[in-house]
Amino acid sequence: MDIDIELKKRADFFNTQLEKFLEGGNPESLYEAARHLPLAGGKRLRPCFSLISCEAVKGDIIKVIPLAIALELIHNFTLIHDDIMDKSKLRRKLPTVHIKYGEPAAINAGDLLFIKAFESMHNMSVDCSTFKNVEFGFIDFIREICEGQQLDMDFENRQIINEDEYLEMIRKKTAVFFQFASEAGAILGGGTQDEINALNEYGLNAGLGFQIWDDYLDISSDETVLGKDIGNDIRNGKKTLIAVHCLNNATGNNKKLLNRIFGNIKATENEVRQVYDLFRQLKSIDHAKNTALNYIANAKKALNVLPDSDAKQLLLELADYSIKRKM
Amino acid sequence: MDIDIELKKRADFFNTQLEKFLEGGNPESLYEAARHLPLAGGKRLRPCFSLISCEAVKGDIIKVIPLAIALELIHNFTLIHDDIMDKSKLRRKLPTVHIKYGEPAAINAGDLLFIKAFESMHNMSVDCSTFKNVEFGFIDFIREICEGQQLDMDFENRQIINEDEYLEMIRKKTAVFFQFASEAGAILGGGTQDEINALNEYGLNAGLGFQIWDDYLDISSDETVLGKDIGNDIRNGKKTLIAVHCLNNATGNNKKLLNRIFGNIKATENEVRQVYDLFRQLKSIDHAKNTALNYIANAKKALNVLPDSDAKQLLLELADYSIKRKM
Repeated sequence: MDIDIELKKRADFFNTQLEKFLEGGNPESLYEAARHLPLAGGKRLRPCFSLISCEAVKGDIIKVIPLAIALELIHNFTLIHDDIMDKSKLRRKLPTVHIKYGEPAAINAGDLLFIKAFESMHNMSVDCSTFKNVEFGFIDFIREICEGQQLDMDFENRQIINEDEYLEMIRKKTAVFFQFASEAGAILGGGTQDEINALNEYGLNAGLGFQIWDDYLDISSDETVLGKDIGNDIRNGKKTLIAVHCLNNATGNNKKLLNRIFGNIKATENEVRQVYDLFRQLKSIDHAKNTALNYIANAKKALNVLPDSDAKQLLLELADYSIKRKM
Repeated sequence: MDIDIELKKRADFFNTQLEKFLEGGNPESLYEAARHLPLAGGKRLRPCFSLISCEAVKGDIIKVIPLAIALELIHNFTLIHDDIMDKSKLRRKLPTVHIKYGEPAAINAGDLLFIKAFESMHNMSVDCSTFKNVEFGFIDFIREICEGQQLDMDFENRQIINEDEYLEMIRKKTAVFFQFASEAGAILGGGTQDEINALNEYGLNAGLGFQIWDDYLDISSDETVLGKDIGNDIRNGKKTLIAVHCLNNATGNNKKLLNRIFGNIKATENEVRQVYDLFRQLKSIDHAKNTALNYIANAKKALNVLPDSDAKQLLLELADYSIKRKM
C-alpha cells in the first residue's frame, strides 16, 4: 500500500464534492474570496482522517462527505482568520485572502465558510439523534479551537509556561480537529462504541504527535546552519515544546542566558546560537522528539481493538506519515 | 400597555439568562473580550421579537430562551466583526472590542460568540425534527447576513444601484434577523403554519421598515443645520434608500451635480447642502419615509390571522415603536 496514492485517491474524491458544494453563491465577490483558500489544494488531511476512520469500521464513506466538507471549511475559516491575526502574506504559495481581497472581505469570507460548514452538516443522512450528537461534538471542538488560538496568543506574552499548559494549548488548537474527525468518521460509519472510542483516542494522539513533531522538525532540520525561521522563533520567544522544556529546566547561568536572549527581538546570531546550543545541552530537542514519538505510538496502540483491514493499515501508516516527513 | 415597560420586562428576564449562559470559560482573556459587548446592554430587540412572537401563539417563552440567546450572540458577533471592518471606535458608548482588546482577540471573540450561539441552540428542548428545522433556518439567515454585509461593502464602490438591489441588501443585512426571530418564536411556541407564516411576514416587513426609517431619521432629524454625519454620508457616497432614489431619478444638471459631489470626500459644506436640497426636491426623503411606513403597515396587517391577545397588541405597537423613535 502506497500511502501517498491512497491519500490522493481520497483527496481527489473529496475535492470533487467540495468544489460542487462551494459552487455559485451571491454576491460573487464574497464567494470568490471564500473559495480562494479551500480550492487552493492542500492534503485534505482532516477529511482523510474522517473518511478512513469510517472505512475502518466498515462504513460507507459517502455518508461522511458532508462532515468532511464541514471539517475542511472550518479548517480554512480558521486559517483565513489566523492569517489576519498574524498578518501573514502567503498561504499555500498564494497571497492570503486578506492580502488579495482586503481585510473586511477576508473576515466576512471566513465567517461565510464558518456558516457553510454548518450548512454542510445538515446534508448528513443520519437519524436525527445521531445528527445532534455529531453536531454537538462539532460545536464543542470549534469552541476549543477558538480557546486554543487565544491560549497561543496569550503564551506569547508570558515568560514561562509549563509543559501541561503547552500540551493543553496544542490539544485545543490542533489535536481536537483530528480527534473529532476520526471519532465522527467512526460514528457516521456505524462503528461500535469501542471502535468510536478507539478512533477518538487515535485522532487525539496523532494530532498531538503531529504538532510536536512539527516543532521538532523546524529546529532539527539543519544542525549546523541555523535557519532564519529558527532564529526568528527564538527572537520572538515562540513557545514550542522544545522552548518550554528548556525554559523549565534551565538553572543558574543558563536561566539567565535564556532570560536575556529568548524572546529578545534584537538578539545577535551568536546569541541565538547559544540558546540553540542550550536546547541541545538540556536535551530539550530530544525530549520533544520522544514526546512526539510517544503520542504516535499511543495513536497506533489505540487501533488494537479494530479488526484488521486495509483501512486500519492505512490509519497505522497515517500515524507514521507525518513523523516521516522531511522539511 | 406601556411598550417600554413591556420590552424592559422581557429584556431583564433575557439578560439574566444571557449572563448565566456567558459565565466562566477558559482562557479568561478570550471570554472577557467575548462578554464585553453582549453584556454592555442594549434593547434586546431581536430576543424580544422571538419571545413576543412565541407569546402571540400562546407558547411558553422559556422554550425560546436558547434561541433568543443564540440570536443576540449572532447579533453581537456581527457587530464585533463589522466594527473591525468599519474601523469603528465606539459602540454602546464603550470602546469597541478591537479597540479595547486588540484586533486578533476581537476576531477570535467574534468567532467564539458565533460558535456559542450554536451551543445555545442545542439547549432548545424540542423534538429532533423541530430542532433541525429551526437550526436550518438559523444557518440560512446567518449566511444571508454575511451576503448582505458584502453587498453593503460592494455598493460603496458602485455609483448607481437600483432600488431592488438596495432592498435586497437591507433584507439580507438586517431584516432576515427579525424575520427569523419572529418565525422561530412562533415555531417554538407551537403556532399553526398560518401563524408561523404570519410572523415570518411580520418580522420581514418590520425589519425592512426599521432599517429604512433609520435612513430617514438620520437625514430628517434637523432640516436647517446639516449634521456632521449626514454631510459625511453624502461625502462617502453612502447608499441609503434616499440616495438610491435620488441617484436613479436625477436627470440633466441634477445628475451632473450628483456625479460631481455625491461620494466626493472633499465636497464643501455648500456642495453637500446642494445634494441635500436635491434629496428634498426630488422627493427622495418623502419616498423613503413612505416606503418605511408602508412596510410597517404590512407588518401589522400580517398579524390579522392571529387571535387577539396582549402579545399581539404588543407586536402591533412594536412595529410602530421604531418609527416613533426620535434621534
